[in-house]
Amino acid sequence: MSAKPLSDLSQLCVHTITTKPWPIEVAAKNFSEAGIGGITVWRNALTGLDIKQTGQLLRDLNLTVVSLCRGGFFPHTEAIGRQVAIDDNKRAIEEAYALGAPLIVLVCGAVPGQSLTESRKQIQDGIMAILPDAEAAGVKLAIEPLHPMYADNRSAINTLSQANDMAEAINSPWVGVAVDVYHLWWDPMLESEIARCGKNENLYAFHICDWKTPTTDFLNDRGLMGEGCINVRQIRGWVEAAGFNGFNEVEIFSNRYWSEDQSVFLDKIKQGYLHHS
Amino acid sequence: MSAKPLSDLSQLCVHTITTKPWPIEVAAKNFSEAGIGGITVWRNALTGLDIKQTGQLLRDLNLTVVSLCRGGFFPHTEAIGRQVAIDDNKRAIEEAYALGAPLIVLVCGAVPGQSLTESRKQIQDGIMAILPDAEAAGVKLAIEPLHPMYADNRSAINTLSQANDMAEAINSPWVGVAVDVYHLWWDPMLESEIARCGKNENLYAFHICDWKTPTTDFLNDRGLMGEGCINVRQIRGWVEAAGFNGFNEVEIFSNRYWSEDQSVFLDKIKQGYLHHS
Repeated sequence: MSAKPLSDLSQLCVHTITTKPWPIEVAAKNFSEAGIGGITVWRNALTGLDIKQTGQLLRDLNLTVVSLCRGGFFPHTEAIGRQVAIDDNKRAIEEAYALGAPLIVLVCGAVPGQSLTESRKQIQDGIMAILPDAEAAGVKLAIEPLHPMYADNRSAINTLSQANDMAEAINSPWVGVAVDVYHLWWDPMLESEIARCGKNENLYAFHICDWKTPTTDFLNDRGLMGEGCINVRQIRGWVEAAGFNGFNEVEIFSNRYWSEDQSVFLDKIKQGYLHHS
Repeated sequence: MSAKPLSDLSQLCVHTITTKPWPIEVAAKNFSEAGIGGITVWRNALTGLDIKQTGQLLRDLNLTVVSLCRGGFFPHTEAIGRQVAIDDNKRAIEEAYALGAPLIVLVCGAVPGQSLTESRKQIQDGIMAILPDAEAAGVKLAIEPLHPMYADNRSAINTLSQANDMAEAINSPWVGVAVDVYHLWWDPMLESEIARCGKNENLYAFHICDWKTPTTDFLNDRGLMGEGCINVRQIRGWVEAAGFNGFNEVEIFSNRYWSEDQSVFLDKIKQGYLHHS
C-alpha cells in the first residue's frame, strides 16, 4: 500500500533549518520560486525579525506557513526549570500566532538520569499548562516522538504509540502528534499507530528525510530521501490512508548539505521529493 | 523493585572485547586475579589459537565461559549470501563447542533498503537452519535485540518484544534472548517483556554498560555503569525477578577506554559494577 508518486511540489514544505545557511527571506524567496507550497519556520530563523511582518512576507510569496519548530523540553529536575520551560513555550505560542503558524511541533524533552516515566509525567503537565494559551491563540500542538537514541536528553517520548497515548490522555482538539520518518521508520508498530492517530484525528504533521548507512553524527547527518534505508513512499502511503492530506515536510539536519551551495541542495531536495517520497 | 547491591565479583563476567587491547590470555589472567567469575569470548580473540586449549586455559583460571560472541547477520539480498551466513554460524557453533561455551549471542543482521519484515523472516530461517547443529553441540542461541539506531545494517530485531516473539515462534529449548541494557533501556515495555521471557525460560544472558550524554560515536562510545542515564540496578532487579541468576556481563565498546591502561580500566569496571549495577 505504497503512495502514488508525487507529481508536483504543491504539497512540499521545507523547514528553514534544512537550508540553515539561508536567512529566512532568502529561503522563502527560493522556495517560492521553485514552486514549493509550504514552509516550516524554526524559531532561530526569526531572531531579530518582526514576526508578524515575516509571516506576511511568507504569505505574499504564496507560501503556506505549516508550523513553528519547536516547543517542548518540559522536563527538569527542579520546579523552577519546568516553569522556565512553560514560559518559553507560551512565548512560542505567541510567536506562532504572530507568524500565522497554525501548529507548534514539540520536542518534548528528557533529563539524563531522571526516569523516563517521570519525564513523561512532566511533559504531560507542561502541555496541560500551556494548553489554554494554545487554544486562545488558535495554535495546535504536535507531540513529536523522537528516535530512542535521543531518549537520554531530548525526548522521553520515543514511539508513536507513546505519543498517541499522551495525545489521547490529554484529549483536546488542540493536541495531536507529528510523524517523522527518521525517528519512527524502524518501529514494527508504525503502520498501526499511524492508523490509530489518523482515526482519532490526531495526525497533525508528517516529516520526511532518510537514514544513511553509515550515519556518522547523532544530530546532523540526516540523508535526503532516496539516500538511505527508509521507504518514505510506503510510510506516506500509511499516512495518507490514515486521512492525512497536509504537507510533506522536508526536515534535514546535515553538516554535509549545509556546507554545500544551498541552491544546488534545493534542487536535490526537489528531486528526492519527487522520486523517493 | 531495584536489585540489592552486589557485594562481590563472583557473578561478574567481562567480555574480551571490553578490554580489547589485551590478548585473551592476558585478559583471562587479569580477570581471574581480580576475582571475576566469568568471561565471554569474542570470536576475534580466538584468531590463531587452539580453541579447545584456550577453553581449558580459561577453566584452569577458574573462569566460567559464559558465551561466545557473536553469531548472526543472517539477512542478505541474495540466497548465496544467506548460505554463507549460515555456514559461518555453524562454524561459530563448532567454536563454541570447542571452547566449552554453552551459548552463542546472535546479532541478527539487517540489510539497508531491505524491509525489516523480510530481514526478520530471513533471520528466523537462518536460526532454524543452524538449530540442529546447535542442539547436537549442546550450544544455546540467544537472540539479542539491538537498539533501533542499528536497524539499518545490524539488526532488524530492535525490541525485546520482537526477540521474544521470535524465540516463542521457534519454540526450542535451545533458542532464547539476550537482554542488553544499552539497547533496551528506553523501551517502555522493558519490564513486562523481561518478565515474559523469564516466564518462558527464554532469558539467557544479561549485558550491562551505560549510555553517556553526549554519545559521540554510534558504535564505540559506550559508558561504564554509573557514567550515564541507565538505571542498571533497576533493570537487574527486573531480570532477577524474572528468575535469571546468571552472570552480569560487562560489554563496553569504547575508543576512550581502549586507549587507557587496561588495568586501570579493569579497576573502574569493578567499581562501576559494585556501585552502579
